Amino acid sequence: MLPISQRARTVQASPIRKLKPLADQAKRAGKRVYHLNIGQPDIPTPKEYFDGIRQAAQGVLAYSPSQGLDEALDALAEYYRTFGIALTRDELIVTTGGSEAITFALLAVTDVGDEILVPEPFYTNYNSYAQITGVQIVPIETRAEEGFRLPERKLIESKITPKTRAILFCNPGNPTGVVYTKAELEMLAEIARTHHLYLISDEVYREFTYDGAQAISALQLSGVEDRAILVDSISKRFSACGARLGVIASKNASVMESALKFAQARLSPPTLEQYGLIHLLKSSQYQNYVREMISEFARRRDLVYSELQRMPGVICAKPQGAFYVIAKLPVEDAEHFVRWLLTDFALQNETVMLAPAAEFYATPGKGRDEVRIAYVLNTDALRRAMRILREGLQAYTKTR
Amino acid sequence: MLPISQRARTVQASPIRKLKPLADQAKRAGKRVYHLNIGQPDIPTPKEYFDGIRQAAQGVLAYSPSQGLDEALDALAEYYRTFGIALTRDELIVTTGGSEAITFALLAVTDVGDEILVPEPFYTNYNSYAQITGVQIVPIETRAEEGFRLPERKLIESKITPKTRAILFCNPGNPTGVVYTKAELEMLAEIARTHHLYLISDEVYREFTYDGAQAISALQLSGVEDRAILVDSISKRFSACGARLGVIASKNASVMESALKFAQARLSPPTLEQYGLIHLLKSSQYQNYVREMISEFARRRDLVYSELQRMPGVICAKPQGAFYVIAKLPVEDAEHFVRWLLTDFALQNETVMLAPAAEFYATPGKGRDEVRIAYVLNTDALRRAMRILREGLQAYTKTR
Repeated sequence: MLPISQRARTVQASPIRKLKPLADQAKRAGKRVYHLNIGQPDIPTPKEYFDGIRQAAQGVLAYSPSQGLDEALDALAEYYRTFGIALTRDELIVTTGGSEAITFALLAVTDVGDEILVPEPFYTNYNSYAQITGVQIVPIETRAEEGFRLPERKLIESKITPKTRAILFCNPGNPTGVVYTKAELEMLAEIARTHHLYLISDEVYREFTYDGAQAISALQLSGVEDRAILVDSISKRFSACGARLGVIASKNASVMESALKFAQARLSPPTLEQYGLIHLLKSSQYQNYVREMISEFARRRDLVYSELQRMPGVICAKPQGAFYVIAKLPVEDAEHFVRWLLTDFALQNETVMLAPAAEFYATPGKGRDEVRIAYVLNTDALRRAMRILREGLQAYTKTR
Repeated sequence: MLPISQRARTVQASPIRKLKPLADQAKRAGKRVYHLNIGQPDIPTPKEYFDGIRQAAQGVLAYSPSQGLDEALDALAEYYRTFGIALTRDELIVTTGGSEAITFALLAVTDVGDEILVPEPFYTNYNSYAQITGVQIVPIETRAEEGFRLPERKLIESKITPKTRAILFCNPGNPTGVVYTKAELEMLAEIARTHHLYLISDEVYREFTYDGAQAISALQLSGVEDRAILVDSISKRFSACGARLGVIASKNASVMESALKFAQARLSPPTLEQYGLIHLLKSSQYQNYVREMISEFARRRDLVYSELQRMPGVICAKPQGAFYVIAKLPVEDAEHFVRWLLTDFALQNETVMLAPAAEFYATPGKGRDEVRIAYVLNTDALRRAMRILREGLQAYTKTR
């Protein structure tokens, strides 16, 4: 047998996929499974998005420019302007999802063997982008007990080596639900300035903030215009995960020229989807859509948080953003518990699927007793899922 | 200014883009430009494709499985079956265009610093995929005068080093129009077997063959089931370049498991587009669509070839496949001529844009007097474009 590559052997398999057979088995056995394990919202995509696609679905389905359609770039610039972020066409590229935006950012500012700092726990696919681009992730540890706030500057600086090229972070945070304060972001900016690092800011959850918290964009920080790179996606805010549309944006012309060369290699982001986005962003409805969605997610967060508070031995910080919460459970091995919920437990023939949190940590052994809960179901379903989790926990801990 | 990465500096900018400002300028000055420089067909995409998208354009636009929708995998398996290629679901992954399929193939079988053999001239973006994945392309020279046929086995073998991992080739060929014979493919297979190499076969032009030529798939060759990797795209055969749907397929389970891990990192190919493809492949119309399109391209090829034959000093082989022809022109620097056509020449205020062929060669200095002509316009437009080219050549050579 011919060997596959070393990088193919080391790149991680999707941790979610590992447990999928168990969920499938439970469903085949007639169990209903509440999926709180993935960041796939249940809210219908805006009608205006589909209208835009329908109108464009004719003629020749041609490549769009590699950078994206001019109209899409203009509509996106206008969208960012509503947040006080001024971007010209040259400072924007439409990417095939946020995943591609992060990959382009890493390709543009790192070489094989370089390092990037990432606050931990972090979105597990960052591992894959790093492996594919040959970059080493150096985690900045943050802890559930401290609400996943950033540690002090010295601790972060102690991780910097001559190979460090960037700090990559997600704000609002997946999986933590943390929204960084201005002071935290200014500290990162100061570190980036002092140590000649890029700041790669993953802002796909921009609008998902609660209790008056506001996500500050890296492009709004002063003194880092030459090193701030925004990566973004329409997946969450427009409930359009399947569209595969994202953005990379920066005021650094060399970074954008580099990203464009990588974009040219893959020819074009999906064309019809861009027409959907243009039509949506031009409609007067999209801001209402987002506002209503966020209200709904705020209700969900309140419900999940208060239910978790009622569960004996469960510890979690109140998330201020995104649609995740990390909960420390009174179990030794959260993955074992997650499996057990699928294979051995049911409440009136229903169960719940969670994401073991260890997969969001790079530091071995961390997060073993934690799960990530994505509150992506309606409040009735969530209430039910929380009851299943509570009773499941009770039954599980009793049998240990 | 913070430095960008070494790989960002070395990755090529799109050669087509380099000349685009000149074409834009010509158009702004009121000139009509016939674009024979890019592989973007002008044929309307099948109605059934758009119907499938319209029907699916509602509800939640969710991620598809990373491997692709089950229905898409089944429809694709059935499509390949019509060519005598039997594939199970596990042997197929839906990719975001053929570009991604090639990248996944390279990531799966090569590491940074490895080498791949590629018959030259080749599709210029192969350079980008190689640069992004850190792989070195070693060209196998073929020549216009010999109709771009493969050289003898010994010459190919002389390029193999301990770092060689694969032979990547495009069949039918972009930019050559060559369709490899069974003997040529069996020679490549024999080399792959003897020297433990993968065969990565880019078959996006599968149906585009003329004069009874037939494209043989790498998956139809015997004795290389463990090392043949098919990369494919629906862009050309269904005139759906903007869909961004491709395929990677192999009987080698390790390769497919590796490719799936890379696919999981980017979450999902575009979802709605897959519904378009499913609906199209399930309709009884798609084979007629392809057949009619190929007849049309055969007429175009005949016209372009016979027009080129009439031009003094122009040499070209009759292409048997794809929709390109490489023509050797009686000029020293084809890129200069291509620029001149845009800036200094017009026939009744019309001109033509071609692709300088040097960009398709890795060997420095090769192809300098050649252009690639993509016959992607209707026969009336092509006839006109060929007249412009003939008169342009005449005027240009007179002024030298």
